[in-house]
Amino acid sequence: MPPPPFPHHHLLGIESLTSEDIYRILDLAKSLGAPSEPKFSHVLKDRLIINLFLEGSTRTRTSFEIAERRLGAHIVNFDVESSSSKKGETLLDTALNLEATGADMMVIRHSAPGVPHFLSRHLGCHLINAGDGSHEHPTQALLDAYTLREHFGKIEGLRIAIVGDIRNSRVARSNAWLLTKLGAHVSLVAPPTLLPKELQTIWPEAQLTSDLDRILPHQDAFIMLRIQTERGTNTLIPTRKEYVEFYQMNSERFARALKTAVIMHPGPVNHGVELTSELFNDPRSLILKQVAFGVPIRMAVIQLLFASRTN
Amino acid sequence: MPPPPFPHHHLLGIESLTSEDIYRILDLAKSLGAPSEPKFSHVLKDRLIINLFLEGSTRTRTSFEIAERRLGAHIVNFDVESSSSKKGETLLDTALNLEATGADMMVIRHSAPGVPHFLSRHLGCHLINAGDGSHEHPTQALLDAYTLREHFGKIEGLRIAIVGDIRNSRVARSNAWLLTKLGAHVSLVAPPTLLPKELQTIWPEAQLTSDLDRILPHQDAFIMLRIQTERGTNTLIPTRKEYVEFYQMNSERFARALKTAVIMHPGPVNHGVELTSELFNDPRSLILKQVAFGVPIRMAVIQLLFASRTN
Amino acid sequence: MPPPPFPHHHLLGIESLTSEDIYRILDLAKSLGAPSEPKFSHVLKDRLIINLFLEGSTRTRTSFEIAERRLGAHIVNFDVESSSSKKGETLLDTALNLEATGADMMVIRHSAPGVPHFLSRHLGCHLINAGDGSHEHPTQALLDAYTLREHFGKIEGLRIAIVGDIRNSRVARSNAWLLTKLGAHVSLVAPPTLLPKELQTIWPEAQLTSDLDRILPHQDAFIMLRIQTERGTNTLIPTRKEYVEFYQMNSERFARALKTAVIMHPGPVNHGVELTSELFNDPRSLILKQVAFGVPIRMAVIQLLFASRTN
Repeated sequence: MPPPPFPHHHLLGIESLTSEDIYRILDLAKSLGAPSEPKFSHVLKDRLIINLFLEGSTRTRTSFEIAERRLGAHIVNFDVESSSSKKGETLLDTALNLEATGADMMVIRHSAPGVPHFLSRHLGCHLINAGDGSHEHPTQALLDAYTLREHFGKIEGLRIAIVGDIRNSRVARSNAWLLTKLGAHVSLVAPPTLLPKELQTIWPEAQLTSDLDRILPHQDAFIMLRIQTERGTNTLIPTRKEYVEFYQMNSERFARALKTAVIMHPGPVNHGVELTSELFNDPRSLILKQVAFGVPIRMAVIQLLFASRTN
Repeated sequence: MPPPPFPHHHLLGIESLTSEDIYRILDLAKSLGAPSEPKFSHVLKDRLIINLFLEGSTRTRTSFEIAERRLGAHIVNFDVESSSSKKGETLLDTALNLEATGADMMVIRHSAPGVPHFLSRHLGCHLINAGDGSHEHPTQALLDAYTLREHFGKIEGLRIAIVGDIRNSRVARSNAWLLTKLGAHVSLVAPPTLLPKELQTIWPEAQLTSDLDRILPHQDAFIMLRIQTERGTNTLIPTRKEYVEFYQMNSERFARALKTAVIMHPGPVNHGVELTSELFNDPRSLILKQVAFGVPIRMAVIQLLFASRTN
Repeated sequence: MPPPPFPHHHLLGIESLTSEDIYRILDLAKSLGAPSEPKFSHVLKDRLIINLFLEGSTRTRTSFEIAERRLGAHIVNFDVESSSSKKGETLLDTALNLEATGADMMVIRHSAPGVPHFLSRHLGCHLINAGDGSHEHPTQALLDAYTLREHFGKIEGLRIAIVGDIRNSRVARSNAWLLTKLGAHVSLVAPPTLLPKELQTIWPEAQLTSDLDRILPHQDAFIMLRIQTERGTNTLIPTRKEYVEFYQMNSERFARALKTAVIMHPGPVNHGVELTSELFNDPRSLILKQVAFGVPIRMAVIQLLFASRTN
């Protein structure tokens, strides 16, 4: 009996997923990433995917492209620099044009929150949000959950601290949705200027705190975030020296955490700011595993969307 | 009995095609784009195509790449930004080098008129002109013809107004060649400063006029053009307000056209200048169909050039 | 009996190769480039290669990509412009991340000497140096050797003059290593300011001279180099007029060379500086053959590294 269709045509964010949806993605990723599987298949040999990255990216861009290639899809990368956006074309026109050329799916990154949701009201093809401003970055949260489950065996009951630029981080938002949905205990940790109180109303079960050292000894995992100076955050933190003193994860601080605790980071890492190079290279750092797990997670999301009811 | 070889090694412009050549391209596109055809084939699995786009593009660039992928060709995209042109290499050297690496075909866009013709005198591989300055853009004219034939059943006898920056538009030039060759009645409509009188000697059967409203009620189709400020046109038009008043296609003006008339545009559209968003989204706008038909048209051109006598 | 494994996991430079390694690459390239071979194969259909070009390139970048496609590898091009390097990520982090996504091989170009060697101490995947600053450019030297062997039947005993910006040229360095290893007589020819005396201690058997006209009548081949103004060389050459007078290869000068002598150039050529257009187009110019041979050479290198002991 074939599995039931996946109940979503797009992946716009974690907010709209159920825990059942999330586990279905994690489970499919596990089977697609199994060492016994061939690295490249032809599952999507009749599908055209356009990667529309309108904001810079290393990991996510490459990870999606590799996931698509491993599934055998045909890929067109849309390079915004060389595009008609210089001639003043609107984003919607660009997307409508790309769809008209025959795209079955678009993977979109944009600096403005809500862009994939806006486009989803005008396009018929599948859409994946690869990061929209400070709003959501759902595949990052999914690969983080995958990494945690691989390491700890389960997610429910884990105590996870997300530390850094909570105000501007789409990773924090998507992870807060995902981890609370799956029953983890989430702490959002940031200097007061980067920790909007309204977040408490969105996730009442989450703990908001500016005191990392107080909660430090009780966490299973620390998801360290980069200070996103490109979103104007730097005027909101006192000084780098103070940030390092109270929020940097370094050997001295990590020595006060649980022996079993792990460090994660969505990257890119600012070495010596939120994390020291020493800990980046520590066996308890799962950062490169996160990157590796990103590929099967994205393969699973792509494959499930193509298996949606509405397809 | 196999079809006779296509009598052209390159597609440099519409000027050098016969109406028989044009219909052969349109007919092959029709069969390649048929819904019963698989989306992707392996027809060109031994061919290497290099896309050499030295001027920005959304639609055309993506459309060619998708057409090439659907035919199963191997593709290399040549990104001018990261290239040795920064080291001062000439365009001819670049092209000779790309050919030496084994390219069977190059698709070239360049801001200078005549570049593909110049290169064709030095290269042995197939060349397709994807737009050379204000000279020609043959695949755009072919997809426009395809769109018109799909909609009206035939092209002969249609009355087509091409409205806008006639002086600088390669689309206008290629369409004027194509539509007059196929027996349509072409009107070239522009403010006097953008309507060079010499064009009358090139296409004696075309009507040149600056009075859109006078010919408005008699046209079957309006091909609206963008004011190409990147070619220095803006000093030649009085003001945007005047342009809108006399040349913009909007609901009020379109209400005075034939009930059966349609709107086309090669894109990108400057909403609120030559066309209103309302009409862009009107069912009588064929703009996104043009984009969709661009893929099978380009597939047909590529396949026919590879089936040329000289191959 | 299968051939023995290739004794290198990476190709970082010519310096570490034996003449046996070099001939093995040349011989495999000869068989892969044979006209009887199909242009595209599936030999590497399970391999993922990432091209990480952090410095501009025409020939090399395209040549590698075509070589990889002809072997059937899966390719991801890493575009530095759109990457997280703008967010301040280190090169090592970028490379570690790309490897974590599943790359089996990376082809790297960088403006700093030693970057591929540095990365090889931290990465497990295969690395190919596609040019590191003024240090080495091993595949260029290999394709030059291939071109010489195709033309002259052998390399041993040939008299080769490398003429130009010896101080800054990675091509000169890689060729000096390769040609002396294979028993050619190498002359390094440059104005005194571009000819560091220390090179004599590296290659004691090479001849260093600033007098091109003196050695001119005795050379079998001239490898002409571009003055690399992007490495700050221009302050070290007297004037263009003087450079042309003493070092330009032109018809007048070439008439004093052996009748059987040939001209080579790694490109891009500055026409009218180190070489005239007339000689670029002369039948005794092997420049476009060099470009053509670059593809099978790179195919051979890629295939042999994947057949290394350590794989």
